Amino acid sequence: MNESGTDAAAEEASSAEQAAASAPAGLSRRGLLGLAIGGGVAGLAVGAGAGLAGGVALGRARAAADAQDPYAFFGDHQAGITTAVQDHLHFASFDMMPRTDRDDLISLLQDWSYAASRMTQGLEVSATGAVGGPAEQPPEDTGEALGLPAAGLTITFGFGPGLFENEDGDRYGIAALRPKGLERLPAFLGDDLDPQGSHGDLCIQACADDPQVAVHAIRNLSRLAFGRARLRWSQLGFGKTSRTTATAATPRNLFGFKDGTANILADDQKALDAHVWVADEDEPSWLAGGSYLVARKIAMLIETWDRVRLAEQDTIVGRDKGEGAPLSGGDEFTAPNFSGTSIDANSHVRLAHPEQNDGIRILRRGYNYVDGNNDLGRLDAGLFFLSYQRDPAHFITLQRRLSTDLMNEYIRHVGSGIWAIPRGARPGSYVGAELFA
Amino acid sequence: MNESGTDAAAEEASSAEQAAASAPAGLSRRGLLGLAIGGGVAGLAVGAGAGLAGGVALGRARAAADAQDPYAFFGDHQAGITTAVQDHLHFASFDMMPRTDRDDLISLLQDWSYAASRMTQGLEVSATGAVGGPAEQPPEDTGEALGLPAAGLTITFGFGPGLFENEDGDRYGIAALRPKGLERLPAFLGDDLDPQGSHGDLCIQACADDPQVAVHAIRNLSRLAFGRARLRWSQLGFGKTSRTTATAATPRNLFGFKDGTANILADDQKALDAHVWVADEDEPSWLAGGSYLVARKIAMLIETWDRVRLAEQDTIVGRDKGEGAPLSGGDEFTAPNFSGTSIDANSHVRLAHPEQNDGIRILRRGYNYVDGNNDLGRLDAGLFFLSYQRDPAHFITLQRRLSTDLMNEYIRHVGSGIWAIPRGARPGSYVGAELFA
Repeated sequence: MNESGTDAAAEEASSAEQAAASAPAGLSRRGLLGLAIGGGVAGLAVGAGAGLAGGVALGRARAAADAQDPYAFFGDHQAGITTAVQDHLHFASFDMMPRTDRDDLISLLQDWSYAASRMTQGLEVSATGAVGGPAEQPPEDTGEALGLPAAGLTITFGFGPGLFENEDGDRYGIAALRPKGLERLPAFLGDDLDPQGSHGDLCIQACADDPQVAVHAIRNLSRLAFGRARLRWSQLGFGKTSRTTATAATPRNLFGFKDGTANILADDQKALDAHVWVADEDEPSWLAGGSYLVARKIAMLIETWDRVRLAEQDTIVGRDKGEGAPLSGGDEFTAPNFSGTSIDANSHVRLAHPEQNDGIRILRRGYNYVDGNNDLGRLDAGLFFLSYQRDPAHFITLQRRLSTDLMNEYIRHVGSGIWAIPRGARPGSYVGAELFA
Repeated sequence: MNESGTDAAAEEASSAEQAAASAPAGLSRRGLLGLAIGGGVAGLAVGAGAGLAGGVALGRARAAADAQDPYAFFGDHQAGITTAVQDHLHFASFDMMPRTDRDDLISLLQDWSYAASRMTQGLEVSATGAVGGPAEQPPEDTGEALGLPAAGLTITFGFGPGLFENEDGDRYGIAALRPKGLERLPAFLGDDLDPQGSHGDLCIQACADDPQVAVHAIRNLSRLAFGRARLRWSQLGFGKTSRTTATAATPRNLFGFKDGTANILADDQKALDAHVWVADEDEPSWLAGGSYLVARKIAMLIETWDRVRLAEQDTIVGRDKGEGAPLSGGDEFTAPNFSGTSIDANSHVRLAHPEQNDGIRILRRGYNYVDGNNDLGRLDAGLFFLSYQRDPAHFITLQRRLSTDLMNEYIRHVGSGIWAIPRGARPGSYVGAELFA
């Protein structure tokens, strides 16, 4: 909605404001300064924060109509993990700026939580927004999502290993609270990682059914991080390659195969507790109810794959391309039978199956990506793999098992990252607050 | 749908097959060879075409359910020009391969037309498709759109200047039929073009409401071009920045402003005839009912723009950010009044307005893009501008007028291309057939 909004839209705004009302009371002075001066013109608008403090009453929803209710930002777990997978992803990795301190990190997490609690409800990044502030200041919201609904937006925050300790030491006084599993992943056979597209002190996963809404979220959170954290790399994705609800049809990856058939579903509380959520006894208490996120950018050698005969494609995957049924028979949801020879010993389905990995399961939430093409006219495309698990060792075990995967001839892991995903923020608090209690 | 499809899906398939039935009778032997061996393994599967000729009866629809009827491929005009703007774009530019001849070009256009007539109806690229062919051959369709509806897919083909004549001369015997306006665009003030992301002998604009469907189309058409044409560059876009129907809300570009308010609408036949469709007397007769497409990749200096105060942003655009109303007053659809001083002489709205350009109008069909970020952590983002006009001179006039546009400080034109857009293919024929009559 905008200034000519209807009464219905105004009501919607008010209700969305209520949903976001238990956020921190507003942006920090530092955050407002970031919005006011953006990147690098320090001194231009000192004092902007104070001038904007009275603007809260101007808050407005972006739009009245949405296909579904917005997802709550506050709760026991962060949204965007078991949430029904949305159509679009904008993922971003950040590094903290040099010479930042504990207060900078706290204020950043507070500002991000405040902004996320608003944007996930279809509101602008701040109460003043794109057009409600003083004409003599840059707008606080960049405005490209004005008029768009929340579109199922979820914003999920993660903390990388470097946040707890790096070559500069324990910058934020939290090294003692570092989760034991939070280390850069080991090198895997065939890794061809781009360091500039890997790792990061912080990550944000923004998922929405409208890419403009996801892009708007990352852009505005990046902007808000001014002087405290800087975008390291980012990735857009579409078409999702996983499902977390039984009613969703299993989507296909860019090899043309169904992907995510055996994923953990959002209503399988037992599996979530066993495989996804960190339990009280596992880790520092602040991470209980959280998880670990692993991201892997997996380039697919599309043109090479497309030359593989159908029977061989089926053998590599261990399922048939049309139906997604295991080659041992049945339909998509029939359990594969590994006792015979119908499923190759080095097929993807066999190596990745819990039966072959001490029962290990992970919750997958990946997306397809296409980043244009290279100089040879080949598509620069693949899978942006995202998985949530209670212990990174689970991913490591699976990935090592895949070292003989027949599929490896057709893929390259080019990006990698790991983050601890704190539990959801409590109303009135912020993501990660327990780290600084 | 797939092999376990329901009766309803089978009926749908049959109806979609009928809609596509007036396409050329099938793929050329050359095209089938391309599908069978992909890029670069010549000799591996010679004779594949003959082996696949019997596969037509296996044709199947990809999916039964769609939110809307598919758009017809055949018709007076190509689809994808006045069609209500879909949510996603995959645009691709191709160069013909060295040493190709007239027959190569004809068979390519026939194959592309055949495949496009199928995919736009929600069918696979060929009758045999992803899983209906011999297990000992690579699948003809790459399969990632199996189970997805047509999703409003349109596929629009264009012919670049180099197709008619280049440094190798008149390769295809059509130099005499070159439209008089079909020349590379002149250099404009501030151009910073990447040659590898500009130009091309052929282009394909694929638009759909599902990005996976648009990507599937470009990928399969690229594959089909094997040995005849090669992908030169490609661009994904989202969020559309134009509208061609009065009921659609005006979308916003990444500067946060409404874009496309004054666009030509699909039901404005008078404006289409005056500004978009090439008339009989203008050009070689094969182009009558066609158009010219101009593409410009316009990088936006997002972070710089975000530091501009709201009043200045409004001044630059000449409209207010919230409503999109001209600064001379009224609402979004009020005509700007340029007689006073409220709209700056170098504002975008004034310089681009037909009143300031001898009544020239173009049909815009652009999309936002985000290609990740650069090493400084800045978003690599902007507008992929697409416009259709009956005469490229119209675009050139407008672009030259914009040389003093206040907005130029915040944008860079980094890619450029121009293509003649032939009229729509007649049922049973192919796009561009009149060129070879």
